[in-house]
Amino acid sequence: MIKPNFRHEINGKQLAICIAQDYKTGQVLMVAYIDEEAFNKTIETHKAHYYSTSRNKIWFKGEESGHVQNVKEILIDCDEDAILLKVEQNGGACHTGHYSCFYKQVSSDASEITEIDDTLFNPDEVYTH
Amino acid sequence: MIKPNFRHEINGKQLAICIAQDYKTGQVLMVAYIDEEAFNKTIETHKAHYYSTSRNKIWFKGEESGHVQNVKEILIDCDEDAILLKVEQNGGACHTGHYSCFYKQVSSDASEITEIDDTLFNPDEVYTH
Repeated sequence: MIKPNFRHEINGKQLAICIAQDYKTGQVLMVAYIDEEAFNKTIETHKAHYYSTSRNKIWFKGEESGHVQNVKEILIDCDEDAILLKVEQNGGACHTGHYSCFYKQVSSDASEITEIDDTLFNPDEVYTH
Repeated sequence: MIKPNFRHEINGKQLAICIAQDYKTGQVLMVAYIDEEAFNKTIETHKAHYYSTSRNKIWFKGEESGHVQNVKEILIDCDEDAILLKVEQNGGACHTGHYSCFYKQVSSDASEITEIDDTLFNPDEVYTH
């Protein structure tokens, strides 16, 4: 079993970076951290799991919302400390209701932000806790 | 001027995550950290700058190799601690000679890695230091 290089230490936890990308369109959906347990669960279940550095625990993406990510392909980078999951995204990846977390476009001089995507769902109805 | 949320603390440095993606094909090229100085230089020059956590310094991508990334579009995620640069990549993004750092495909059971891309250049000829 391949073990990524969990070299990023945040609050004493060893982590790799994990990007999720739409497997059909190539749209980048989100980026988060992943620890060894979350990586192993992702492999076992073929559904993306991450590690939340704010909640300090493993996080099954879509556990509450149903917006799970079915993993279609796994790539790892040159030094094996970053993972790219090509996924089939159910619902939306973002807790704000957007399909991708990257829905804010920054102007070239970084003076302003424009939202470039509409929301797909109402987060107040999906996240009840 | 927009200031990303440099909330990831690594070795006492406040950082955001920065992904580079080919602006035409959507291929993810690399992921690294970015600090405030590197972000500001990226905005000023329209060329990607990062922060190297192994060398503990700002890093102008392509400074040595000439493989600079011309920034075509900048996106920031929901909580503004991750940046997505859509870039025109000169040469290859990876120090191994590959176009993308994500050239290793992990099998679905994570038992093996297959290289899915050929190298574009010989790193020994490009990186002389």
